[in-house]
Amino acid sequence: RIMRPDDANIAGNVHGGTILKMIEEAGAIISTRHCNSQAGEPCVAALARVERTDFLSPMCIGEVANVSAEITYTSRHSVEVQVNVMSENILTGAKKVTNKATLWYVPLSLKNVNKVLEVPPIEYARKEQEDEGKKRYEEQKLDRLETKQRNGDVILPVINPEPHTVGYSQSSLIHLVGPSDCTLLGFVHGGVTMKLMDEVAGIVAARHCKTNIVTASVDAINFHEKIKKGCVITVSGRMTFTSNKSMEIEVFVDADPFVDEPRERYRAVSAFFTYVSLSKEGKPLPVPQLLTETEDEKRRFEEGKGRYLQTKAKRQAQMQQAAQQ
Amino acid sequence: RIMRPDDANIAGNVHGGTILKMIEEAGAIISTRHCNSQAGEPCVAALARVERTDFLSPMCIGEVANVSAEITYTSRHSVEVQVNVMSENILTGAKKVTNKATLWYVPLSLKNVNKVLEVPPIEYARKEQEDEGKKRYEEQKLDRLETKQRNGDVILPVINPEPHTVGYSQSSLIHLVGPSDCTLLGFVHGGVTMKLMDEVAGIVAARHCKTNIVTASVDAINFHEKIKKGCVITVSGRMTFTSNKSMEIEVFVDADPFVDEPRERYRAVSAFFTYVSLSKEGKPLPVPQLLTETEDEKRRFEEGKGRYLQTKAKRQAQMQQAAQQ
Amino acid sequence: RIMRPDDANIAGNVHGGTILKMIEEAGAIISTRHCNSQAGEPCVAALARVERTDFLSPMCIGEVANVSAEITYTSRHSVEVQVNVMSENILTGAKKVTNKATLWYVPLSLKNVNKVLEVPPIEYARKEQEDEGKKRYEEQKLDRLETKQRNGDVILPVINPEPHTVGYSQSSLIHLVGPSDCTLLGFVHGGVTMKLMDEVAGIVAARHCKTNIVTASVDAINFHEKIKKGCVITVSGRMTFTSNKSMEIEVFVDADPFVDEPRERYRAVSAFFTYVSLSKEGKPLPVPQLLTETEDEKRRFEEGKGRYLQTKAKRQAQMQQAAQQ
Repeated sequence: RIMRPDDANIAGNVHGGTILKMIEEAGAIISTRHCNSQAGEPCVAALARVERTDFLSPMCIGEVANVSAEITYTSRHSVEVQVNVMSENILTGAKKVTNKATLWYVPLSLKNVNKVLEVPPIEYARKEQEDEGKKRYEEQKLDRLETKQRNGDVILPVINPEPHTVGYSQSSLIHLVGPSDCTLLGFVHGGVTMKLMDEVAGIVAARHCKTNIVTASVDAINFHEKIKKGCVITVSGRMTFTSNKSMEIEVFVDADPFVDEPRERYRAVSAFFTYVSLSKEGKPLPVPQLLTETEDEKRRFEEGKGRYLQTKAKRQAQMQQAAQQ
Repeated sequence: RIMRPDDANIAGNVHGGTILKMIEEAGAIISTRHCNSQAGEPCVAALARVERTDFLSPMCIGEVANVSAEITYTSRHSVEVQVNVMSENILTGAKKVTNKATLWYVPLSLKNVNKVLEVPPIEYARKEQEDEGKKRYEEQKLDRLETKQRNGDVILPVINPEPHTVGYSQSSLIHLVGPSDCTLLGFVHGGVTMKLMDEVAGIVAARHCKTNIVTASVDAINFHEKIKKGCVITVSGRMTFTSNKSMEIEVFVDADPFVDEPRERYRAVSAFFTYVSLSKEGKPLPVPQLLTETEDEKRRFEEGKGRYLQTKAKRQAQMQQAAQQ
Repeated sequence: RIMRPDDANIAGNVHGGTILKMIEEAGAIISTRHCNSQAGEPCVAALARVERTDFLSPMCIGEVANVSAEITYTSRHSVEVQVNVMSENILTGAKKVTNKATLWYVPLSLKNVNKVLEVPPIEYARKEQEDEGKKRYEEQKLDRLETKQRNGDVILPVINPEPHTVGYSQSSLIHLVGPSDCTLLGFVHGGVTMKLMDEVAGIVAARHCKTNIVTASVDAINFHEKIKKGCVITVSGRMTFTSNKSMEIEVFVDADPFVDEPRERYRAVSAFFTYVSLSKEGKPLPVPQLLTETEDEKRRFEEGKGRYLQTKAKRQAQMQQAAQQ
């Protein structure tokens, strides 16, 4: 579809959240279709995880987004989908890869939302494809277990914070979940949640550096808990790390089923977003260093630095590999 | 994309206007891409006309709409696009043709909106394709000239109207044209206008028969005049004709460029929509007869009857032809 | 237009904010049209104030909202508009008055947004109409000056609050102002701001009483400061008073022009919203009493009680008057 002014920031760059939402919708369609392809209980595919994804080039107002999706692996209860997004300038015909994302979906029964159904197996062109898929499946399973344990953290408000501290840029929004945010099962689309997370992360980044900012990448996101229609969700973000040219923001999503449910507020999702700051000509700008004050902030900064260096090393290894080929 | 609650009426049937908007977006993308395929002045394709289109089967919330578009003819200054819409139930895998539409676009220069550019010719597999296209081109050209003359009519309000009269169900809405309604040139997308027209026509139909109603077909629509960002548009509808099972509604779109333009309010588009009334089980219901009072209403009723009988005769001829093959 | 699922809460009642947004759009259109009716500098009417308005009967999904607007007074630099909203059930034909609102607009030059233009005078059928309008004009002018002074208050966060305290239900959201939120001048529509205010107030009310809640009335709102495209706005709400069957919530709107503006965060609007709690059958429910803890909270509770008793007295006087006629 054509990108509109409402999909973009004031500099004309499409929000990463808009792209994440399109990616998730494509993934939900292809995996729901696949899981219902054999006779059996009807089901809806629910997003369980998005792998780390990089925004390779910015998309602009007036460009057309081409989204294509393919099922690349199936385990007994989950589907791996690869989604590619290309931006096309229909005036010049130029096309660019914007995004490659890998998503994991789980089929939930339409009659009983707590029942996970079996996934019809796909056929692989080569045996290695299946083996590699299985390896990816095991890796993400492990990672999901780990993040589940980390999930108790809360963002506390700070009174009169100094510029460039964590408290200065931290932000949160609340959103009442409406019918158009939800699947047939009455649960929020993963893509809607990711769009809100990107919105908060973007405001944290802009508050910190007061320039035009764009999403550079999103770390793996695990969807531990479903969020039901009528819930109020609180999306909060705080900056955890800055390098010379990038900012890492941690985002939490908490759900509050406050009408006709006996349940307490719970953590539904958390993730790390990386942003860069751009000049009016679209060149990367230096980012002011994050001032850490408490022990927790210093620890999170070091952890963020670890993730940053790890990603950088991985990228350099890939580039060397590519150069040698 | 997946159909959401906001795309549909309370019975779950997707509004004809939502489908028309998707059709027009697909047509605008493919024709803008084609017109920019050769080096030259960049341009945006503007909708000039939509041929009569039937809604063959209703689409429902949760279904996926598949829209495909193909360029079928090019004249020197216009492009004919054929758009097909299929609804897919991704739970059962069932697919149905919802709609086949033919649209005409004209390339306008990005630098000077009043300059119509030349269209790169397409290649035809067979000579007959070109000849048939040329015939369609001449026909629509003639029809556009005719409607241009009819366009002076105004809908006047009626005080305390009786049920089933024209005055009883006539309706209008106003809409302030915002940035997301517009193309790169700052003019309203034809699809946005058609969606509003369908909304008004639907309210007229529901007021008349007080049941669940759905769009059955739309007569050819000609876009005579562009509508600029910042305009207020008034969309008005009145019933012109009822058969036993259908209602014909005439819809006018008037634009009011009331800020920073010296221009008077003008008629931008007009069209006829046909609606049917459905029971809760989706079966067609009888429609109360329209009570005509004035001479003009009686004349419009007869004209509507003419269009109705003509369409019916055409359809029967097609069915006979199909039966003989 | 027809009320859609996204316009309403899970019980099907249309959000007060959706109605306020429609009212403001109608007011902006009629006053912009009036102020441009004479040759002169083109201008856009900006919302300066909304008088107290009651929501007389709830509107539901599937109903059609009829909005009509009329200019009732003009001063040298401002326009008073009366807007009426009727809900119409198009299946039964039943119509109900939902809302009567009075709004004040000021014409700002399209070329220089800081220049207030002169308003063409309207003609009055009777001299008393002009005199009464002038009285209303003087009254609102006085009230605007007063509220301007009150505007320094801030909502501070509370850690681990008890149920039914002020801290327990207080809420805030952030919103990045996009192009569709704005007028031709690049400033937020008053209606967009009111919709966000109602959203926050509704979440405060629902958190307090954990039932289905609806907007009962909105006190006069003054728009002291414009909010520019690209700003982040923070909308915060806290409960100030509860009677047996109603809750009063104070809402603040702060604007943060954080990109390419040297300006500090500022208070743009503040207002009081009154909500009632409804059972599933739509009957009013008792509201849990607000627990006040600090001196400020106790003072605000007393002030809220004052407003409540004053409104009640006014309403009783009107009813007596009506009974005597």
